[in-house]
Amino acid sequence: MKETVPNNSPTGRVLSGMRPTGKLHLGNYMGALHNWIRLQHQYDCYFFIADWHALTTDYADPSQVRQNTLDVALDWLAAGLDPENCTIFVQSHVKQHAELHLALSMITPLGWLERVPTYKEQQENITGKDLTTYGFLGYPLLQSADILLYGTPGQPLHVPVGQDQVAHVELTREVARRFNSLYRTDVLREPQVLLTPSPKLPGTDGRKMSKSYGNTILLTDPEPVIRQKLKPMVTDPARIRRSDPGNPEVCPVFDLHKVFSSGETQQKAREGCTTAGIGCIECKGWLADAVVADLAPMQERRARYEAEPALVQDILNTGAKRAALRAEETMHQVRAAIGLSEPAQ
Amino acid sequence: MKETVPNNSPTGRVLSGMRPTGKLHLGNYMGALHNWIRLQHQYDCYFFIADWHALTTDYADPSQVRQNTLDVALDWLAAGLDPENCTIFVQSHVKQHAELHLALSMITPLGWLERVPTYKEQQENITGKDLTTYGFLGYPLLQSADILLYGTPGQPLHVPVGQDQVAHVELTREVARRFNSLYRTDVLREPQVLLTPSPKLPGTDGRKMSKSYGNTILLTDPEPVIRQKLKPMVTDPARIRRSDPGNPEVCPVFDLHKVFSSGETQQKAREGCTTAGIGCIECKGWLADAVVADLAPMQERRARYEAEPALVQDILNTGAKRAALRAEETMHQVRAAIGLSEPAQ
Ligand code: SF4
Ligand code: SF4
Repeated sequence: MKETVPNNSPTGRVLSGMRPTGKLHLGNYMGALHNWIRLQHQYDCYFFIADWHALTTDYADPSQVRQNTLDVALDWLAAGLDPENCTIFVQSHVKQHAELHLALSMITPLGWLERVPTYKEQQENITGKDLTTYGFLGYPLLQSADILLYGTPGQPLHVPVGQDQVAHVELTREVARRFNSLYRTDVLREPQVLLTPSPKLPGTDGRKMSKSYGNTILLTDPEPVIRQKLKPMVTDPARIRRSDPGNPEVCPVFDLHKVFSSGETQQKAREGCTTAGIGCIECKGWLADAVVADLAPMQERRARYEAEPALVQDILNTGAKRAALRAEETMHQVRAAIGLSEPAQ
Repeated sequence: MKETVPNNSPTGRVLSGMRPTGKLHLGNYMGALHNWIRLQHQYDCYFFIADWHALTTDYADPSQVRQNTLDVALDWLAAGLDPENCTIFVQSHVKQHAELHLALSMITPLGWLERVPTYKEQQENITGKDLTTYGFLGYPLLQSADILLYGTPGQPLHVPVGQDQVAHVELTREVARRFNSLYRTDVLREPQVLLTPSPKLPGTDGRKMSKSYGNTILLTDPEPVIRQKLKPMVTDPARIRRSDPGNPEVCPVFDLHKVFSSGETQQKAREGCTTAGIGCIECKGWLADAVVADLAPMQERRARYEAEPALVQDILNTGAKRAALRAEETMHQVRAAIGLSEPAQ
């Protein structure tokens, strides 16, 4: 099931999505977006903002979903997703996602959904939210529909995910096999996991960077905010005084250096740290320089898109239309395979 | 919650559906269709063929769904549903049914669905079919979506059902209330039950007329078949010899007389039976005359529609378009109430 990303030539389709959690941070960027930007030149890519999925956990307060959807779209464009090279759309704008979800619901045993590892986990871990809805139980099946809509018989369908999402893709493969075998068809293409490098970025408190920990650096943070957030960042806890040598390998700041700084800067920081030649403040300053330099072109692009909201709307509209055309091809074949009558064109 | 059917003037909308079980029999006709034909002159009516629902129990063998859908449409038109007076469509042709079902799934507690009386009942009673799917659990919610799509704030929405379906409408009302209260809106109109007269017709074996008992008379049965099916029909079991007087009140044949024969014929049969003045064969002959006379105009209409399949397709297409326009108005308001971003037009 594993594959490596080929260097060139479009060999199939890629489908991936992201929940509209709001403005993206460096962790979101490195975890997915950074890979997508490369993938868009190698595959026929469909990237969607999963607003229905946001409701599976947040139906009780979806007041932010619309603004978050827009923010994610802006961050994607800012980061370098190019609507000329990939299809960007909002899940709820393409009705076929709901339609295939309904079709798949008919053939999917309840037990398959109850056994999805994240189902019980999330019910235990997420407190303060009601996760006992029909929709929450069905969200892995909605993911399956999201993916399977964009397959085509005879053409590979790739899903770039991290290791923790492999079980969900496996469910999608099982559902596809069950559908194909029930209706003696090959219309649902089994997706392949495209394991993508996604370093776990530490946040400013040393834990995994995550919105819920309040330890993030946003792609939209201006330079002063970045410097201000990095200044108190957790370092090698053994380096108490300026004169103590430090160990970069246990320092979250250095983890970020590895991702954002040049080899040269990394070398300089490592040497300065281990010899107590530099202070942590100086080291963090270099990191801030690197992050600011990485984000500067994104922030410029974002400003340009923000100034043209109609253009962003237009990109999402065009994306939804393109996605719906593709998705409708699949639904047409799905309805035919089941034996439903055909609607008018 | 009860209402009586007003005699005139369109006072709101009516929504009802039927599963595509194939050619309709007299029980289907008297149970629903007969009322619809009257309702179409009194309300703004939407009647749909519930092909997605057919899959909740028959996903494993849906080979008949397409033909059954067409047969139901033909029987509706034959019976007198007039596309000029009501909107007739196929559920799967209107994607908004799947879309609202998905939206409602997010807010509906699993427990509400597990507690629907028919859920456990059907799992116990229907053997030989797999009813442990996600879709089967969700079918009352799909019914809710079917209904709520066609409501409009400020306009009554009626659902003509028999007593056994009242619990499903109650679930729909609860789901609508929950949605409206969560999102501080009135977009989902609570439907009203329109209790309609629906005599339980006996089949030829005296049990309730039902496809699964093989005791039906179809709307499409030609005269000789009707006579042949009625000839061995179960009668008053105490009337063994021609010379025994019978009791029409315990005779299934007489139950059918009550529905199909004129008062005059009923009187004649009652007298002949209780005085042993007639034999059961003669009595059944009169019933056959009445049924044949009732079905003749329907069968003529059906023949005309069968000769023009393109016309039937066109009626279903036009119906689906009209229904989708109405349903999209609701979905637009539903998405806005939740706070999803708006798709392009
Ligand atoms: S100098 Fe840099 S790498 Fe060393 S402990 Fe301080 S922040 Fe970490
Ligand atoms: S005469 Fe008619 S009503 Fe009387 S038992 Fe026979 S079939 Fe029934």
